[in-house]
Amino acid sequence: MELANKERIKHHFKTFSKFTATPNEGMTRYSYSPEDVKTRTYIKEKMEQYGLTVREDGLGNIFGKLEGTIENAPSVLVGSHFDSVPHGGNFDGPAGVIAGLEVAALFQEQQIKPAYPLEVIAMIEEEGSRFGEGLMGSRGMNGLIDEEDFHTIRDKDGISVTEAMQQAGLDPTLPKHREQKTMKAFLELHIEQGPILEEENISIGVVDTIVGLTQLEVTVEGKAGHAGTTPMDRRSDALITASSLVSELPNLVQDESNGTVITTGKFAVYPNGANVIPQKVVFTIDLRSGEEASIRRVMQKAKTLIASHQKNGIHTSIHQHLYMQPKELSKEVRSSFKESTEKLGISYIPMQSGAGHDAMIFSDFTEAGLIFIPSKDGLSHCPEEWSDLEHLAQGVDILFETAKKLTEAEIG
Amino acid sequence: MELANKERIKHHFKTFSKFTATPNEGMTRYSYSPEDVKTRTYIKEKMEQYGLTVREDGLGNIFGKLEGTIENAPSVLVGSHFDSVPHGGNFDGPAGVIAGLEVAALFQEQQIKPAYPLEVIAMIEEEGSRFGEGLMGSRGMNGLIDEEDFHTIRDKDGISVTEAMQQAGLDPTLPKHREQKTMKAFLELHIEQGPILEEENISIGVVDTIVGLTQLEVTVEGKAGHAGTTPMDRRSDALITASSLVSELPNLVQDESNGTVITTGKFAVYPNGANVIPQKVVFTIDLRSGEEASIRRVMQKAKTLIASHQKNGIHTSIHQHLYMQPKELSKEVRSSFKESTEKLGISYIPMQSGAGHDAMIFSDFTEAGLIFIPSKDGLSHCPEEWSDLEHLAQGVDILFETAKKLTEAEIG
Repeated sequence: MELANKERIKHHFKTFSKFTATPNEGMTRYSYSPEDVKTRTYIKEKMEQYGLTVREDGLGNIFGKLEGTIENAPSVLVGSHFDSVPHGGNFDGPAGVIAGLEVAALFQEQQIKPAYPLEVIAMIEEEGSRFGEGLMGSRGMNGLIDEEDFHTIRDKDGISVTEAMQQAGLDPTLPKHREQKTMKAFLELHIEQGPILEEENISIGVVDTIVGLTQLEVTVEGKAGHAGTTPMDRRSDALITASSLVSELPNLVQDESNGTVITTGKFAVYPNGANVIPQKVVFTIDLRSGEEASIRRVMQKAKTLIASHQKNGIHTSIHQHLYMQPKELSKEVRSSFKESTEKLGISYIPMQSGAGHDAMIFSDFTEAGLIFIPSKDGLSHCPEEWSDLEHLAQGVDILFETAKKLTEAEIG
Repeated sequence: MELANKERIKHHFKTFSKFTATPNEGMTRYSYSPEDVKTRTYIKEKMEQYGLTVREDGLGNIFGKLEGTIENAPSVLVGSHFDSVPHGGNFDGPAGVIAGLEVAALFQEQQIKPAYPLEVIAMIEEEGSRFGEGLMGSRGMNGLIDEEDFHTIRDKDGISVTEAMQQAGLDPTLPKHREQKTMKAFLELHIEQGPILEEENISIGVVDTIVGLTQLEVTVEGKAGHAGTTPMDRRSDALITASSLVSELPNLVQDESNGTVITTGKFAVYPNGANVIPQKVVFTIDLRSGEEASIRRVMQKAKTLIASHQKNGIHTSIHQHLYMQPKELSKEVRSSFKESTEKLGISYIPMQSGAGHDAMIFSDFTEAGLIFIPSKDGLSHCPEEWSDLEHLAQGVDILFETAKKLTEAEIG
């Protein structure tokens, strides 16, 4: 039995794919950008078409609500984020938003009357690509960011969150915080962004744990000088130290298990002239693990390693941007996902998530669940990112069955 | 006996220092920029004030000529460049241009009539900071760059040399090539940009050899991916490879002598997002030595090292931008410098130059000479770059004496 309408899903993806700042070079959809506004307009139109009541909060998160029969009851939220990394793909984020839209379309088609409200949710700035703060939509609505921070967190052009919202025609004075008691559950579909489901030929991963993560910013400072006239033994070359450090980082996780990974993705050299000895390098460290002890152990090793390079006129410093513990997701929702999967005859395995999705934030405030669908070649955050329509439709079916159950819906 | 007017020299430096794109953060004067145009206007004004006939060539190099008594005789050129690196100092380049202006002022003050013309010269784009091609002013005027290249060499914003000149109000259709027979000698004063003269407490370095240099651009390509979901053993991380390579480069020159140095100054990571495994890194290698065999040996080692990292989905490639042999400067001019130094009672030592100055280019076309003055703490290419007025004045005196001799001047 197939529930989801593949043509409808395909049309959503095709429309989303048009709203990129870098046509023919992948999806670039920064929060509050012109591409955000176009996507936002489309999402709101479709929510209304599927009979949902639309509102936005003071962060620009979008909610489409189907009222339940119980008055003032908490909602079952279904959705994900719609921002992207620079030159990313069309699935990381959108797959979950589109799945939410399709669940609502099925509720409408089948004239389902839920006891608890169903809310489709589309969130901003999960990637942190514009403001450098990941999971901003979910952290903001769950009260994990102070109001004043939205005035001080700025993008690379110095524009604050509040200013960027105003420039996009959004209203930052609307309420941002959503009270815990208004949420019964949060369901998210996301692409795996890794190779496991494809390699095992499995349609669905039911996530039990989301890895913890920390992001560090490391600054290495030395002394600039002329590349031709400064003898090798008189140099304090920030790049030689920084590159040596970065090349040693993978060794720090060699003995760890629990999916521990370490990455330097951003790396900037100053002044960056071919004949100038680098004075300064600033780079990021992204460290993740399913086991909090691993994160703490590797972080300590990284700090020791970085401090050990503080010699010969080199100064190093570390700033911690983000720290999230590993999170176990709702046992109840996981069971419900598994039941739906079995009922529908869809293959699944339990999995760990290596990426820190919005569901991780919600897990502290409500019953949160997350399912993965396969990513072609395990690729993500690049234009080649791809998931098959078949898997998307299967994922929607599971979300629909689970949402029906959690909203205690009656078939009209 | 003191010749140079220190107050006049001081005033020139003070004026030059105002024309920076980065006030309070060092000198940034790119070729054909608004700062170039302001400096250029000042140089031309001063040239006229000192009785020189001013012209610019089709590259924007500036010449101020004092005619000689012999008709159509070749000129003795005195000068340097006036562009800078980003966030550099006020002496690398300007010191030589200002010295040229002061030599002309002394010729005027003392009513000297040269047999051969004296020409003060102020050149563009020695640093290559805007167009990535070092020594462009001297290479261009000596016919070492094809005319069509000025349409294809572009800055980081895609603006060609020709377009940039037009935007600055300069005329790229003027003749660029200066015939060899029009030059009798080229004299340059430059700051040492190294620690030797200061440490030895010597006023002047008379350069006998300029080191050879090569600049390579290395590209390392891997595969992008999500920082959280790609296991460490499935990665083709371009940054891990590139940083490992860069950190090993200093080892390649450990056994070399003759002032062999190797530097990576420019290093760019793509796509440069904190949670994206780097897909590509492009970096420069700047390699210099007084001995050509050393350059060839180290370059071969670098190529072998880079090729050896081509594994696990990583592709590397090398593009050679520049190759210059070590150059011996004119014996005649060196003798003349030394005679002047002795006559004036100024301390000097013979030196090797670690930087590839414009004099290096001229040495293939005319009798070229180069003197160094001390750099405070050996620093250069940074805001702290500094040379004392006393040494500048001594350098001018030597240039003046040498220029008088080479132009076969008569004291009016």
